[in-house]
Amino acid sequence: MVDKEEVLKAHKAHHGKIEVIGNVEVDTKEQLSTYYTPGVADACLAIKEDKESVYDYTLKGRSVAIITDGTRILGLGKIGPHAGLPVMEGKALLLKKFAGVDAFPICLNQTDRDKIIEIVKSLEPSFGLINIEDIETPKVFEIVEQLTKELSIPVFHDDRNGVGVVTLAALLNALKLAGKKLQKVKIVINGAGAAGIGIAELLSYAGAKKIYLVDTNGLIYKGRTENMNYMKEKLAEITNSEKFKGDLASATIGADVLIGASNKGAFGKELIKSMADKPIVFALANPEPEIEYKDALDAGAFICATGRSDMPNQVNNLSAFPGIIRGLLEVRAKSIDEYMMLRASKVIAKFVGNNLSREFIMPDATDKLTVSKLAGNVAAEIAQAAVTQNLARVNVSGVQVKKNVKDALTRYRKIEKLVKKS
Amino acid sequence: MVDKEEVLKAHKAHHGKIEVIGNVEVDTKEQLSTYYTPGVADACLAIKEDKESVYDYTLKGRSVAIITDGTRILGLGKIGPHAGLPVMEGKALLLKKFAGVDAFPICLNQTDRDKIIEIVKSLEPSFGLINIEDIETPKVFEIVEQLTKELSIPVFHDDRNGVGVVTLAALLNALKLAGKKLQKVKIVINGAGAAGIGIAELLSYAGAKKIYLVDTNGLIYKGRTENMNYMKEKLAEITNSEKFKGDLASATIGADVLIGASNKGAFGKELIKSMADKPIVFALANPEPEIEYKDALDAGAFICATGRSDMPNQVNNLSAFPGIIRGLLEVRAKSIDEYMMLRASKVIAKFVGNNLSREFIMPDATDKLTVSKLAGNVAAEIAQAAVTQNLARVNVSGVQVKKNVKDALTRYRKIEKLVKKS
Repeated sequence: MVDKEEVLKAHKAHHGKIEVIGNVEVDTKEQLSTYYTPGVADACLAIKEDKESVYDYTLKGRSVAIITDGTRILGLGKIGPHAGLPVMEGKALLLKKFAGVDAFPICLNQTDRDKIIEIVKSLEPSFGLINIEDIETPKVFEIVEQLTKELSIPVFHDDRNGVGVVTLAALLNALKLAGKKLQKVKIVINGAGAAGIGIAELLSYAGAKKIYLVDTNGLIYKGRTENMNYMKEKLAEITNSEKFKGDLASATIGADVLIGASNKGAFGKELIKSMADKPIVFALANPEPEIEYKDALDAGAFICATGRSDMPNQVNNLSAFPGIIRGLLEVRAKSIDEYMMLRASKVIAKFVGNNLSREFIMPDATDKLTVSKLAGNVAAEIAQAAVTQNLARVNVSGVQVKKNVKDALTRYRKIEKLVKKS
Repeated sequence: MVDKEEVLKAHKAHHGKIEVIGNVEVDTKEQLSTYYTPGVADACLAIKEDKESVYDYTLKGRSVAIITDGTRILGLGKIGPHAGLPVMEGKALLLKKFAGVDAFPICLNQTDRDKIIEIVKSLEPSFGLINIEDIETPKVFEIVEQLTKELSIPVFHDDRNGVGVVTLAALLNALKLAGKKLQKVKIVINGAGAAGIGIAELLSYAGAKKIYLVDTNGLIYKGRTENMNYMKEKLAEITNSEKFKGDLASATIGADVLIGASNKGAFGKELIKSMADKPIVFALANPEPEIEYKDALDAGAFICATGRSDMPNQVNNLSAFPGIIRGLLEVRAKSIDEYMMLRASKVIAKFVGNNLSREFIMPDATDKLTVSKLAGNVAAEIAQAAVTQNLARVNVSGVQVKKNVKDALTRYRKIEKLVKKS
């Protein structure tokens, strides 16, 4: 854990973490009138003639809006859009660092669902992708759904989609080691926030048939009336087909997989002891897991994964979002769907390669070279998946995408070095 | 004039003109958890405790939103927010280049006045200043007025305020050479759009008593009913106290100063011949002036200024906006007022120094060293003026501001050089 004073000092040193620079030279009179008035008018008119050429002549195709309303920042809750800015700026920093993407944090002083939808819709001209972050549920689901319908650029909800992708990746590898099939295993997911929902959705899409989603009111089932929302109702259609009722403990009996997207200490050792043979436990609550890694193994877990970087098997969406977003931008995607996310999961799982073991089911998201390389692989896969799905404006080969990412990161490392010195 | 194909090629080469980079190093596990989860939570909580500390821990105090709705892009009219993006991106480029400011273009897919106000209000957490650009009149006046009332960061309207500042600067020098006093001269302004209004307002604030504002319906006077709007009505209160009626030609008879913020060819030689002794003519229409520089002199103009960079006396708001915006950010200003703008005008006028002549009344805005140095001087003045007006959150001395700008530009030149190579 980093010291609080150090964190504050680091954030104060340069007043935040990102900056905007030019990527062209503008030293001469001629350059000035090329990039600004009067010459720039030609670029304007070209876009007026052909709106899609905005991808050619501006930053749109490279740029991402990282949007929050400050209602659910990390695990800190509703701390407001100003207090959420350091997280959004951090996300922009990582997007550049690991995928060469130009992202800008937009923290909205507005929490009304319909107004947020209207605001974000209006921002579309400047951005190639909208990344929704740390907005409270269930509001965020409706915002993302509506924006996805109305915008012709992807709306990515990392808390849900990114978490879904990395969790499925980890599970694919864990099941391989356990010799079990996704289609057959009983999976209990504790927590029905953005993460729990995103995991359940993607696992279901990937072929899991026996998913049980549990929230503070116990098992979610079709027809439940307490503490429901439209997304839980949607999930009730694809999970718990038997309409079982009951608490987490009863749901978990005989489960092959237990996934926590809930809170510290939510899993006791007894819970794990009640599971099927070779139990797989993902305790993903942040920063403190539902059960400590060691305790899970003590209780008999065949494999345990957490969100912690100081334990084996960290499930970190840093393995997913830089590459996913870069891949979408590479092909000027119109949208992202579950097929694309599934392919991203498979690439991440495969990336572990021959290192695969019970203590190593995920790429090391704390290693910058791993994350950079992974971003290239994920971007290539997402880009090609978008083409397959007919959701791409342009076709860019996987090889070319990997090269583009690599070149961008090589270039950026030089800039970073210079910035560090200055 | 730059060739169209060259402009398009230049804009396509890097897909636009600006990018986002990190300004901190994030290579180690520890740095990752300082700038992102879990450490970043400490910065969030510090801001939650003390909202003003968002200026310390984030980019807010350095960052500017360049906002348009695409309804009046350059002289091209209502070409839409996508087609407006190259201009806004160019403005961001110049703000970094000449004042070290981090600006991001936000082109809104929304033209409704009240909705724009609501949207821009909601963007406040991420930005230290709002720059409104190329929005049609009179809507833009109401937007700026309302935003200024409701936001505690400056709302700068360059088309009006920036143009006002540079025009006043040029006029102060021209009057000095003509041996006339601002308080005494008769000034005719042709054009009552954002620029004409901004010029009339600031000249009036600076002490001009005899201003006559002319639009396509002729002289504006109190009580006129045709083609008025609330801003023209406001201006009718402080101009044309005699309530003269008539066209541009009749208004200009005996005028000391004729300023055009209108369109190509609006001034004939006869018009200038009808003016008082030592007539001062500013033909500021862009890209083609109301009368060519040479023709104005031929007709007897004592001094002529235009918006053209290939003629003497270019009146270019590049002399003003980088420094004004930087100065406001330096002291974390809450607002900008006319007192501050007047001081900026005086600094710009003074910058010409001993070079002052009828062919040299303004700093050379095509020379990057001039513009950079001027930005420092203007920033220092604006910052101190904000302190005087009690509109600053912090006090930074003029000397310190100049040093900050100089250091920022020295640092940026290195980054630029690297970017150029890559």
